[in-house]
Amino acid sequence: MKSTIKDVAKMANVSISTVSRVLNNPDIVAKDKRDKIVEAIKQLNYTPNALARGLIHKRTQTLGVLIPDISNLFYAELIKGMEDAARESGNNLIICNTDNNQDRKNASFKVLSEKQIDGIVFTSEPVFPDNYELFKQLGVPIVLAATHSLEYEIPSVKVNDEQAAFDATEYLIRQGHRQIGMISGSMLDPISGLPRIQGFLRALRTHGIELDPDTCIEYGSYHFKDGYEAVKRLHKKFPEMTAVFATSDERALGCISYLHENKIKVPDDISVIGFDNTRMAGMCFPKLTTVAQPLYEMGQLVIRKLDRMINGEPLEELRTYMDHWIEERETVYNLTK
Amino acid sequence: MKSTIKDVAKMANVSISTVSRVLNNPDIVAKDKRDKIVEAIKQLNYTPNALARGLIHKRTQTLGVLIPDISNLFYAELIKGMEDAARESGNNLIICNTDNNQDRKNASFKVLSEKQIDGIVFTSEPVFPDNYELFKQLGVPIVLAATHSLEYEIPSVKVNDEQAAFDATEYLIRQGHRQIGMISGSMLDPISGLPRIQGFLRALRTHGIELDPDTCIEYGSYHFKDGYEAVKRLHKKFPEMTAVFATSDERALGCISYLHENKIKVPDDISVIGFDNTRMAGMCFPKLTTVAQPLYEMGQLVIRKLDRMINGEPLEELRTYMDHWIEERETVYNLTK
Repeated sequence: MKSTIKDVAKMANVSISTVSRVLNNPDIVAKDKRDKIVEAIKQLNYTPNALARGLIHKRTQTLGVLIPDISNLFYAELIKGMEDAARESGNNLIICNTDNNQDRKNASFKVLSEKQIDGIVFTSEPVFPDNYELFKQLGVPIVLAATHSLEYEIPSVKVNDEQAAFDATEYLIRQGHRQIGMISGSMLDPISGLPRIQGFLRALRTHGIELDPDTCIEYGSYHFKDGYEAVKRLHKKFPEMTAVFATSDERALGCISYLHENKIKVPDDISVIGFDNTRMAGMCFPKLTTVAQPLYEMGQLVIRKLDRMINGEPLEELRTYMDHWIEERETVYNLTK
Repeated sequence: MKSTIKDVAKMANVSISTVSRVLNNPDIVAKDKRDKIVEAIKQLNYTPNALARGLIHKRTQTLGVLIPDISNLFYAELIKGMEDAARESGNNLIICNTDNNQDRKNASFKVLSEKQIDGIVFTSEPVFPDNYELFKQLGVPIVLAATHSLEYEIPSVKVNDEQAAFDATEYLIRQGHRQIGMISGSMLDPISGLPRIQGFLRALRTHGIELDPDTCIEYGSYHFKDGYEAVKRLHKKFPEMTAVFATSDERALGCISYLHENKIKVPDDISVIGFDNTRMAGMCFPKLTTVAQPLYEMGQLVIRKLDRMINGEPLEELRTYMDHWIEERETVYNLTK
């Protein structure tokens, strides 16, 4: 006969809910108890099944999604994938917009916790120690989307940002560009800031291009107006540049807008490559060449991971890095032709 | 002494919760009871106060927002306003994306109802009789955003779509255009379809311009690709047009993209005016002239109305129509100069 969660609890001499916590959120269970339970699970060859877990947990079939900025099309694509995967598994999403605001983020966690959701998707932002404490308190499975944590064992789905930035820069180099500027997020951002700068600099190095980071990199937030302002500063200090790597599509559009207004032709005078491949990249003129993140598929995978965790099923991998690619459109000029 | 909800209940010989239902959602209370309660409220000169109501209702300080398509920047702007007003009044928003799908809409209502939210914002879509039945069942205050109902007494906030379309068309006429095409949503859409067509045709009529609607109007959904396809058909049947009124910014961008690809200059050869004034309108090239809806302010007002209803405070008006304006940018050519 197939063993049940009751059998596991009995053998480990703990309550059923402690077993279920180990399945969902092992970090919140003391190590000695956890070891006993894991040992019992192995001996009994126990595999939890969704239905049984549903009975134990009284699932609400609702998943909470925290996003930092609903006006960013990045999240629209990601959420579309999440919605479709949620529908497949009979879940509904509720979305909270934290507006890049710490108070709002805490309030959203509180709301989700009160609303008895089955699991949470946390997007884009780094996981700081206080976030992690909060995650543990919530006691529900969490998956990170478009972010990851190297410090904590939390499942995540994102692209390899360092490699993606390397590839974008190398793409420009292969098109004959050597005077390449970058518009980047803060170096203090360990998710989409620093790794992309590292990838950019590695590509320059690999191809023997010597540029002073103080000259060829400008910083700014990810919005249109930030890209606009950043390229203005960048162009002033680095007028010989023939290409710009802007690390979000919105930054890239802001950059193109500034160049247009100043009668600098894109791509004839200056090429621009973006990052994300949101819908906007195909809607502007000229259409934006950009590093594509598989946002829709990322959203799907995030929800599938979360659903497996809620059902107590094992994950194939903790941290998933999805493939990116260069979506060639019209904003990069080939200097080698 | 100020009278209380208890006094009202006593005088009307009903329970406190029935009085509270009349304050929140009078339609779900039988007419004879309702009349008695309204009479008691008048006689006692009772004004509900927020704190007292909070005690009765056990408010969760959570408001639910239903939007049909999170990938539409229209909602991003609207929600930003809602978020800020919600923060002011100590509320949190949870957002459900219905993806223009009836099943998903019903599922979202179910989720919001289970999650014990204090009130609901329903955006953009017409209120059909079955929606209205659902609203009544939910038993919480509802405000309509960017839509309204003439059949039912539901508070709403939107622009006057007929007048806005009239003004957009008249704006083109004043710039010297007489061969004007329109890219519109379906005539069957009583919110943003038919009224905008009526406004367009009224402007032509007012200025003595005779155009056959079958020739000068093309239909399509509100997405980029729909605008792209619609203007292709429109240009084929109406090649002499010098201007297009596209009734969403996305349609307008799709339209501009098609014209660019076919070497038709915007605005030199064909002018384009959009509708909504989403962030995208200022991010593209050339920057889009468009009918501006005060989306942020609409979002704020919607939440303020909802909060008043939840607190049992009277609304200044049931259906609010906010001012629109023409945001002049770069896509309309002045033929009179």
